[in-house]
Amino acid sequence: MRQFKLFAIPALLGALAVSSAALAQGQPSKGEQLLKYRKAVYQAIAWNFGPMGAMAQGKAPFDAAEFSMRAGRVAALTPMLAESYSAESQGVTGSKAKPELWTSRADFDAKMKDLVERSAALAKVAAGGDEAKSKAAFFDAANTCKACHDKFKAD
Amino acid sequence: MRQFKLFAIPALLGALAVSSAALAQGQPSKGEQLLKYRKAVYQAIAWNFGPMGAMAQGKAPFDAAEFSMRAGRVAALTPMLAESYSAESQGVTGSKAKPELWTSRADFDAKMKDLVERSAALAKVAAGGDEAKSKAAFFDAANTCKACHDKFKAD
Repeated sequence: MRQFKLFAIPALLGALAVSSAALAQGQPSKGEQLLKYRKAVYQAIAWNFGPMGAMAQGKAPFDAAEFSMRAGRVAALTPMLAESYSAESQGVTGSKAKPELWTSRADFDAKMKDLVERSAALAKVAAGGDEAKSKAAFFDAANTCKACHDKFKAD
Repeated sequence: MRQFKLFAIPALLGALAVSSAALAQGQPSKGEQLLKYRKAVYQAIAWNFGPMGAMAQGKAPFDAAEFSMRAGRVAALTPMLAESYSAESQGVTGSKAKPELWTSRADFDAKMKDLVERSAALAKVAAGGDEAKSKAAFFDAANTCKACHDKFKAD
């Protein structure tokens, strides 16, 4: 039974790996694939970060369950970013990474580590449900985003 | 000290929520935002699914640590999909969802639940490091992708 079902898996995996747009334009480079992954992860982070930001700023009522759910998702997503900044992605068209990212790599990596650690701390605090502590941990995490964007992201 | 740093957070959150493309074309609808999030999550799933697929099919050597890392990421990502299929995203341009998704919603939701459960099982098995069990769990998860695509995704 499993053998029969497996028959179609290679086609599925092929479809997952290469989008129709990529097929139309030829196989994307490794750098282009990395950039696409990077943007996807940032997009998913932003989606979950937004509602926490609204709550942290008092623009939406604090909902401890939603806040914790979104904090957990961000904490799962941020460790995915590092891979997307591997050397093969240097200079790929469409990236907002400043050249300084590649010449100050240790600083960039440290800032990325800050993001991962602060988002993990945010998820842990948010799981406890305390509003003030959750909001403070959110701003700690958001500041690590800003610190990196200020130095390494083009406007 | 924290107060000063917080000053710039609203601008950061605004930048996260609205891309420059969206600004140029006017604010995207909720459905368009959901579709963008959905595609980002699928992209991140595909990125991590691919190397597991290569290992499961014997096209790459089995690396238990990498397999487990990617399985954990997929298990964290699949629960993010359900939100992206909320009713506001029905009929949005650019989606490959067939109309049947909205008329057979219970079936779709059951298939999505299968994906979440099988990807969680895959992560658990992969953490144990056994090659044969990891590969079998991978195909179980991949079959839940295929079952849903066959019925609800346009070519």
